[in-house]
Amino acid sequence: MAKVFHRLMKVEEAIELVKKHLKPLELDVEYVSLTDALGRVLAESITAPIDSPPFDRSRVDGYAVYSGSLAEVDEEHPARLKLVGVVETGELPRLEVKPGEAAEIHTGAPLPRGADSVVMVEYTRRLDGEVLVYRPTYPGENISQAGTDIMVGEVVLRRNTVLTPREIGVLAALGLDKVPVYRRLRVAVVSTGVEVQPPGKPLEPGKIYDVNSYTISCMARELGCEPRILGTYPDDFELLRKVIGEAVEEYDVVLSSGSTSAGFGDIIYRVFDSLGEPGVLVHGLLMRPGKPTVAAVVGGKLLVGLPGFPVSAMMAFHVFVKPLISHLTGVPVEEETRVLAELPLRVQAGGGRRVLIPVSLVSNPSGGLSAYPISGDSGAISRLALADGFIECPEDREFLDEGERVYVTLFSKAVEPADLAVIGSHCPGLDLLLELLGRTLRVKTVNVGSLGGFLAVRRGEADVAGTHLLDPETMRYNIPFISKYGLEGRVVLVRGYARMQGFIVRKGNPKRIRGFEDLFREDVIMVNRNRGSGTRVLIDLGLRKAAERLGLDFDEAVKRIRGYGLEARTHSAVAAAVAQGRCDVGVGVEAIAHIYGLDFIPIAEEVYDFLIPRDRLSKPSVKLFIKALRSEGFKQMLRDRLRGYRALEETGAVVYDGSNL
Amino acid sequence: MAKVFHRLMKVEEAIELVKKHLKPLELDVEYVSLTDALGRVLAESITAPIDSPPFDRSRVDGYAVYSGSLAEVDEEHPARLKLVGVVETGELPRLEVKPGEAAEIHTGAPLPRGADSVVMVEYTRRLDGEVLVYRPTYPGENISQAGTDIMVGEVVLRRNTVLTPREIGVLAALGLDKVPVYRRLRVAVVSTGVEVQPPGKPLEPGKIYDVNSYTISCMARELGCEPRILGTYPDDFELLRKVIGEAVEEYDVVLSSGSTSAGFGDIIYRVFDSLGEPGVLVHGLLMRPGKPTVAAVVGGKLLVGLPGFPVSAMMAFHVFVKPLISHLTGVPVEEETRVLAELPLRVQAGGGRRVLIPVSLVSNPSGGLSAYPISGDSGAISRLALADGFIECPEDREFLDEGERVYVTLFSKAVEPADLAVIGSHCPGLDLLLELLGRTLRVKTVNVGSLGGFLAVRRGEADVAGTHLLDPETMRYNIPFISKYGLEGRVVLVRGYARMQGFIVRKGNPKRIRGFEDLFREDVIMVNRNRGSGTRVLIDLGLRKAAERLGLDFDEAVKRIRGYGLEARTHSAVAAAVAQGRCDVGVGVEAIAHIYGLDFIPIAEEVYDFLIPRDRLSKPSVKLFIKALRSEGFKQMLRDRLRGYRALEETGAVVYDGSNL
Repeated sequence: MAKVFHRLMKVEEAIELVKKHLKPLELDVEYVSLTDALGRVLAESITAPIDSPPFDRSRVDGYAVYSGSLAEVDEEHPARLKLVGVVETGELPRLEVKPGEAAEIHTGAPLPRGADSVVMVEYTRRLDGEVLVYRPTYPGENISQAGTDIMVGEVVLRRNTVLTPREIGVLAALGLDKVPVYRRLRVAVVSTGVEVQPPGKPLEPGKIYDVNSYTISCMARELGCEPRILGTYPDDFELLRKVIGEAVEEYDVVLSSGSTSAGFGDIIYRVFDSLGEPGVLVHGLLMRPGKPTVAAVVGGKLLVGLPGFPVSAMMAFHVFVKPLISHLTGVPVEEETRVLAELPLRVQAGGGRRVLIPVSLVSNPSGGLSAYPISGDSGAISRLALADGFIECPEDREFLDEGERVYVTLFSKAVEPADLAVIGSHCPGLDLLLELLGRTLRVKTVNVGSLGGFLAVRRGEADVAGTHLLDPETMRYNIPFISKYGLEGRVVLVRGYARMQGFIVRKGNPKRIRGFEDLFREDVIMVNRNRGSGTRVLIDLGLRKAAERLGLDFDEAVKRIRGYGLEARTHSAVAAAVAQGRCDVGVGVEAIAHIYGLDFIPIAEEVYDFLIPRDRLSKPSVKLFIKALRSEGFKQMLRDRLRGYRALEETGAVVYDGSNL
Repeated sequence: MAKVFHRLMKVEEAIELVKKHLKPLELDVEYVSLTDALGRVLAESITAPIDSPPFDRSRVDGYAVYSGSLAEVDEEHPARLKLVGVVETGELPRLEVKPGEAAEIHTGAPLPRGADSVVMVEYTRRLDGEVLVYRPTYPGENISQAGTDIMVGEVVLRRNTVLTPREIGVLAALGLDKVPVYRRLRVAVVSTGVEVQPPGKPLEPGKIYDVNSYTISCMARELGCEPRILGTYPDDFELLRKVIGEAVEEYDVVLSSGSTSAGFGDIIYRVFDSLGEPGVLVHGLLMRPGKPTVAAVVGGKLLVGLPGFPVSAMMAFHVFVKPLISHLTGVPVEEETRVLAELPLRVQAGGGRRVLIPVSLVSNPSGGLSAYPISGDSGAISRLALADGFIECPEDREFLDEGERVYVTLFSKAVEPADLAVIGSHCPGLDLLLELLGRTLRVKTVNVGSLGGFLAVRRGEADVAGTHLLDPETMRYNIPFISKYGLEGRVVLVRGYARMQGFIVRKGNPKRIRGFEDLFREDVIMVNRNRGSGTRVLIDLGLRKAAERLGLDFDEAVKRIRGYGLEARTHSAVAAAVAQGRCDVGVGVEAIAHIYGLDFIPIAEEVYDFLIPRDRLSKPSVKLFIKALRSEGFKQMLRDRLRGYRALEETGAVVYDGSNL
């Protein structure tokens, strides 16, 4: 028995090892009604109990005849056939058609004995007790023959087939209204960590909400399993041993998340290994993220400990858990959650282990998809919101190259590419605008900052990029950057709106902040913004002037400012730092200060515009975007809902089209 | 008001006309728990009620410090910081870190006031009441800042978003355990036709089972609707008016199938039009199949009458109903049910109307998909079983060309390409064999006859082709055709098994059939097989000899045989014709006679083989196929379950590999 402790394994090796100790389940068979069978897995091959069609049936309205009766017939020389009766649809005919005879027959009605064809009513004339037929038939004409479609005893559907509308239709055609399907795989889902709290109640101080229980159980459900969320538990060996021990008895698979890294004392590893034989088989994968993944088999049941970060857990689920669930159920893993896309950027990976990179899909100009790597904090929820799926850099590659074709594993089959890709600076005003766009438009927003927006436009991935880049030389917003990024003639700039920037301080301004001078005070802690953001330009400009007024050297003076090095990446992070008392002051838009219930001291108004590639101006979704920007409804929403925001006379107008630099 | 009667409309024109009279629904909002929200549609945009992360949190285990305290630090010159306490994960810190101080902090714990970074425990040494730090930090190091991920007030998810595991995770992260979703669209489904019977009870004579209620309701369910099957009804105006009239009151959409062609007196058209304003808007589409489609709007509700044939109804649903449902709900139609494939054959369409052609998808040698048009009877259930989706030939094209790239609309997102494509002659023995292949193999069987199998192999689409082609010149099976189809060196032939052919007659052989001579008798009606089938070769050979013995000219004599022109396409159709008394005798395999409870008079034994392209021999699914063919289990199943079948000494052996022609 190859029990492996603390040796990092390649993903495939780990899967094979677990499979060796994990027998495919002989799942019970249950009968469900046909209307409940969609998406279930057929447990027995279905042999046709009847023929289809069950009898030779007419495809048209007309007369059943023996073709030999019409050998010499044409329009000039009709045959005169004796009418021997009517064959009704929906019942078996008792009559027989002999040479020289005909029987009236309707579409779908069974062919009577002796007839070998049906002549359409259009080519006949009815007389009293007789029919004139003006056209010969060939044997089999206008007939669907019994069993030519499906024959009794033929295997029509095989077991392990996932039932789609098509298979359900076949089962109905055979008269089955109950279908043998496998019971669903029962999957228990546990989240661990003392700081994890289930959603639904206000967040306790220092806690975060449980995400993994929900994403993991949804992914399990999409695989046809029956997931059950058991709850969140602190990293307590005895408690987890009890909870997971009971789950192993009751469920087919137990999936936990969190508590798998060495920092938490390997609790999940010890819990899994304490429950029975063979115990833990995999303890660490050559994969990033997902390295601390633990897998065990106990009494024929599969246990997997997934990483705590949501996107990491989702990726590890797809790469590692899905093939093992497929092994257990015998239902092949669906290939269809993979799509081909182009990588717009080189991605550094680092060989020797597999690297999984979450990506956002956007349509590119050539009609294909681009897979946009989502950078940032592993634990970020926004990564979760943006990631359509992930790409994999194999163990033997150092990087994936710009322009390379890559497979993207979608996080769900229901993931769809967007109609409108908005990539660039984020702004609450833009959120309002997209809200207005309303129904039937799938909008993807990727917040990468103004600079990132220019780059995305240059690569042809953004339909619209929000931007508020101030050029310190000309003190003009946005337009100077168009030539800087080589986009002359390729883009237009559409005027957005103005928003007020200022100091964000606690209610009542307890530290009595009045200007940038106050930030040099010993008793004040500030929160800064990230370099390259428009707000940071504003802050440094203000501090430089204040230092001059105070007779200080700027570069020396900022070292003394407490919190100058703390770079928040959004307006909101600034407000949060102030609201929670970690800092006393920061710079941001008035609307955010208002939302957080903080006080605000205005500094300056800035302009927020939209960069749009020329070749997207004819795209319906872009037209709708501009129309909404120009609408009275939007201007009113800005006024009513965002403090410090206002529409401009030029709002919605093209302020740069390549001719007015 | 543009009411159009009996004028065939282009599909897009018809959709636009209906949309003009059909307002998008303001669906009620209902709150469902997060665990039930998968696949539902978000009814309100979600604004973040909290920041994510909710506080600045440490990404590592270590000490929270002010980076200014570590300005001059390196491995030789550590800083000595005063330890002011421990920040626990899961609670808010009350302490403040001043310059020269440090606080112990764990992964995920909130950063205390005054600290701007965390130094990892690896770079520290703990003393009594103090910490030695051997490395400087930069501000923000090892910290996830509050709100940098998602900020309060930010629109995180927009309404009309379909909730996948990812969105569910985002909602959980924000603490929501109830989600506002639109109620599902209520869709009533009705089948019409006097011959239609619901599945579940034995088929009454002359009836067929209702298929459309099930396929249509499943497709509606996949679109997120709540379908309700109302039942099957005869084509009775008053009855249908009552049923559909009540349905219009109770449901958002009513879908019927059948009874739409002129042959049934336009009952559905008249029913729809009698129910209110504006009534019928579309009565006939420039589309094949689907021409008799009827669409009406009554009191803001959509009514569509679909064709009766199952595959036609499914195609019309996708092309016509889906966009209208999307219009009603505001959820964009999913693009993802379309895949690109290559057309292996030229398809004749006929301009002026759109032609929809059901196709079966198989993998081709270049790694792509080939869309194999499924020919045959429109009403055939086997078409339903084989069709993965359909292709469209637009109004202005006469044909689609061989090798053309076409979009295939899948009948369900759950449709998957097969692991093993078996294309060729059908045989109950082959069914048994595929049954043995068991789990984890997705097998697609396309029954196109032996000849079709050779062609599919030549085009590179079949992994395996069952064949029993007798060469009348050499009287050898299968091998002579390899060179005839230019496949020398490209294929191997694997020996299958032997099966007995003979006369199939009613129990007790009431017509006393003993040989081919009896087929010339006046009181005997035969059923023939299709030209090109192996069995037809056998029949004509037998009749020719019998004619010689009777002193008849063959070509003249067959004209006298009753039923000689009735060409059944399968063994089963032959047996069915005999069992139902429509004919007295036919030729087919003994196993089928046995299944039908008929008598059997042997004629000759034939060999059924498998043609396999050389380049597929290494494919895992093909290896498994050959392994199963060679297995004792299969040989025993042949013996036990199929009368007249037997394994041969060479069963599973390669009898032709290019060198032994």
